Amino acid sequence: MAKFLTNREENYAKWYNDLVIKADLAENSAVRGCMVIKPYGYAIWENIQAALNKMFKATGHVNAYFPLFIPKSFFSREAAHVKGFAKECAVVTHYRLKNDETGKGIIVDPSARLEEELIIRPTSETIIWNSYKNWIRSYRDLPILINQWANVVRWEMRTRLFLRTAEFLWQEGHTAHATREEAIEETERMINVYAEFAENFMALPVIKGYKSDNEKFAGAIDTYAIEALMQDGKALQSGTSHFLGQNFAKAFDVQFTDRSGRLDYVWATSWGLSTRTIGALIMAHSDNRGLVLPPRLAPLQVVIIPIYNNTGQLPAISGKASEIKIRLEKAGISVKYDDRDNNKPGWKFADYELKGVPIRLAVGPRDLENNSVEIARRDTLEKKTIPADSVYSVIPEMLEEIQKNIYNKALQFRNDNTFIVDDWSEFQNILENQGGFIMAHWDGTAETEEKIKEETKATIRCIPFDAPEEMGRCIYSGKPSERRVLFARAY
Amino acid sequence: MAKFLTNREENYAKWYNDLVIKADLAENSAVRGCMVIKPYGYAIWENIQAALNKMFKATGHVNAYFPLFIPKSFFSREAAHVKGFAKECAVVTHYRLKNDETGKGIIVDPSARLEEELIIRPTSETIIWNSYKNWIRSYRDLPILINQWANVVRWEMRTRLFLRTAEFLWQEGHTAHATREEAIEETERMINVYAEFAENFMALPVIKGYKSDNEKFAGAIDTYAIEALMQDGKALQSGTSHFLGQNFAKAFDVQFTDRSGRLDYVWATSWGLSTRTIGALIMAHSDNRGLVLPPRLAPLQVVIIPIYNNTGQLPAISGKASEIKIRLEKAGISVKYDDRDNNKPGWKFADYELKGVPIRLAVGPRDLENNSVEIARRDTLEKKTIPADSVYSVIPEMLEEIQKNIYNKALQFRNDNTFIVDDWSEFQNILENQGGFIMAHWDGTAETEEKIKEETKATIRCIPFDAPEEMGRCIYSGKPSERRVLFARAY
Repeated sequence: MAKFLTNREENYAKWYNDLVIKADLAENSAVRGCMVIKPYGYAIWENIQAALNKMFKATGHVNAYFPLFIPKSFFSREAAHVKGFAKECAVVTHYRLKNDETGKGIIVDPSARLEEELIIRPTSETIIWNSYKNWIRSYRDLPILINQWANVVRWEMRTRLFLRTAEFLWQEGHTAHATREEAIEETERMINVYAEFAENFMALPVIKGYKSDNEKFAGAIDTYAIEALMQDGKALQSGTSHFLGQNFAKAFDVQFTDRSGRLDYVWATSWGLSTRTIGALIMAHSDNRGLVLPPRLAPLQVVIIPIYNNTGQLPAISGKASEIKIRLEKAGISVKYDDRDNNKPGWKFADYELKGVPIRLAVGPRDLENNSVEIARRDTLEKKTIPADSVYSVIPEMLEEIQKNIYNKALQFRNDNTFIVDDWSEFQNILENQGGFIMAHWDGTAETEEKIKEETKATIRCIPFDAPEEMGRCIYSGKPSERRVLFARAY
Repeated sequence: MAKFLTNREENYAKWYNDLVIKADLAENSAVRGCMVIKPYGYAIWENIQAALNKMFKATGHVNAYFPLFIPKSFFSREAAHVKGFAKECAVVTHYRLKNDETGKGIIVDPSARLEEELIIRPTSETIIWNSYKNWIRSYRDLPILINQWANVVRWEMRTRLFLRTAEFLWQEGHTAHATREEAIEETERMINVYAEFAENFMALPVIKGYKSDNEKFAGAIDTYAIEALMQDGKALQSGTSHFLGQNFAKAFDVQFTDRSGRLDYVWATSWGLSTRTIGALIMAHSDNRGLVLPPRLAPLQVVIIPIYNNTGQLPAISGKASEIKIRLEKAGISVKYDDRDNNKPGWKFADYELKGVPIRLAVGPRDLENNSVEIARRDTLEKKTIPADSVYSVIPEMLEEIQKNIYNKALQFRNDNTFIVDDWSEFQNILENQGGFIMAHWDGTAETEEKIKEETKATIRCIPFDAPEEMGRCIYSGKPSERRVLFARAY
């Protein structure tokens, strides 16, 4: 193979990092904790954006853009919020550089100090609710259903490409409502949108549920999340939707006149999904040959590679390949014909496997004679020779099949690695030796949650919406419990 | 009218600001110099992005994303570059907030000072060329044709919505080439892409040309620009493309092995277009009733308004309106049916005129009887009654007509306000009393350019590519000159 990957079973963390680098998705930059998202990685993000934008629009949302900077004083207005984010804020204090007179080169101009420091947004509730204050007078101004695509900064100390970076890209929805019920309905609607997106586009089965108080968003009444299981048995949270109650409306004094003429504070939600999900996409499906991308998010769905012994054979092959490419593209399929002459077909095969292109076609002189092509799918690595004219029906079907197969494989993996546990030593054992999702009883207290985390590194990923009522005893404290919750070690 | 605008002829600056606010495009935020781009304004930006992305892709470019932060030391490596941007840099010095122990609330944690300050990117040449250093070894790695959509910050002291803001959105292309010729070709290609975009989408005629040394990008060998004329006789630069030579490759030590095995520095270009162009769009076409938007960038191309005396008439009207809406949308036209009952039709007419929606349809009970609709176009304000079934052919044609008419009007205005001047007092007079583009001779020196600027506030907008060789004498110094250059006061 052209570019060797670390074996997934040997060192999962290194396998992941190798994969991100060698498949040309992203790399670390010279700025601590900030990544460069390379064109192939960014193309996945653009496909994610396109899919989400459609779903947001279909649920009545519009896009807008708010400032990168948040005055420090805004940040302090919602107590829980500032507590949650204060430790990881990038702070702008000056607005000018100058030439040092003593010859030290370029320095920050001490005379250009800001009166009030500005925080680079780690999330935009405060700056947005300060704007909403001027937009909302009456129930007629509600609901406001706005989404923003933006970069945000959280000064993480230990970073990993896509999964945890100081700067990341995301979308953040911020909605304002006249009633509590409507805001809760919106919070639910958006976690459902994320779950549909994860399942239909990322081919990733997820569990929807409530976060415990310990794990919820700083400033939220309730946080809903979708949780997915990675191949190393760790969980990854792939999208959250928050019911903010009237917390931010109160912090920024946003009141409205309701239908009955009464003044009340506005109800809020916020919800976000970030470039972190690209990390989930990679970790959930890929193998030792490289990425396995679901066709609906793959930047390139089909690659065509010419096979020839001498360049005299190339024109006829290229003619056939171009014909196939043009017709597939008309059907909305993204296709690349790779006729670069500096690498052998075997090298190219390995390279496109590394990059997770769902379908590979190979066309050689014998194919031209027989009017055939060789078709190979990335997920199962199966290949076969088919009549050339059948590609227009075979490929769209195969892309759908791959999408489904990847999902089913991930679902099977999750089912095989979800355990119902009632015994503490079994709980510890599973986490230590194999990982996975554990459904266990919990007494509902933050203390128990903390202790379980200390002893096992596992956290409550969520309290699943569909967890049935079931009396039991807490896995740790033995106190009574009404339903099982989802535990796992997590990214 | 629902929301009065300041008269354009009375106070152009106030008219512009009113228009941006009242048409709900943008507003100032609580952060000095930073704007909130509201959904209607952002939808224009999304249309600009879609059009440019297509043109960038067609010319072989891909998108990527680089960090928001630039280490201060990077910034200093290209001398002209740092000189140009040092005075307007937002600087991050700390990475944590904390609760003040003496009760002053939330403060910047003095112990969390960065070893090296980070600059919020005002443009990304330095951080990008630092990455390119690792990507380029041989001529086989070239060209690199990357574009980035991003926010940037330049600490402007006097800001105006869209035209000049501390944070703005833009795209920045950064390309790397093996030869000088190829880089110059790319610089030209991209200024042509901008000119086509301006003319075909923004309906804005532009003059392409070279910037003088005074006005070129900090770090460039040559800057090409497109210049447009606004209705108040001032120029607005709407896109620039820079030939950077080997300046950044040398600053970041980016060398490659060429075909002959020789080591050389890489050749570079960069090119950008920002949310500033939305300011140009507004100022070039709009009138005292509000925005006039070119159909190809209008978020909403057609609005349908029901006319009724009693709500009993509404269902039949809504049936007809929905039928029209659905069929137009299938043809790729964006349509809104506004059946809100809290405003009279007259109020709605004025509101959509303010928002610059290119075509308005009105449907009333008499129209249902006659199977007709009233159609009104925003650019000419003409209205007429046409058979309802003809809208599917009339509307696409009319949108094209409006697009062309807006362009022709702007071109006519520019032609009427472009002056060939050989006399200094006439030069001063025109600038003082009517504004416009002035084609005049210039001796080619920075001193003369400076003096003309001091005395008249006019700058050299560009040296047009198509300015014919023509011997003459400098309008200011009387020294010999070989061609006329374009002067104007500018935004």
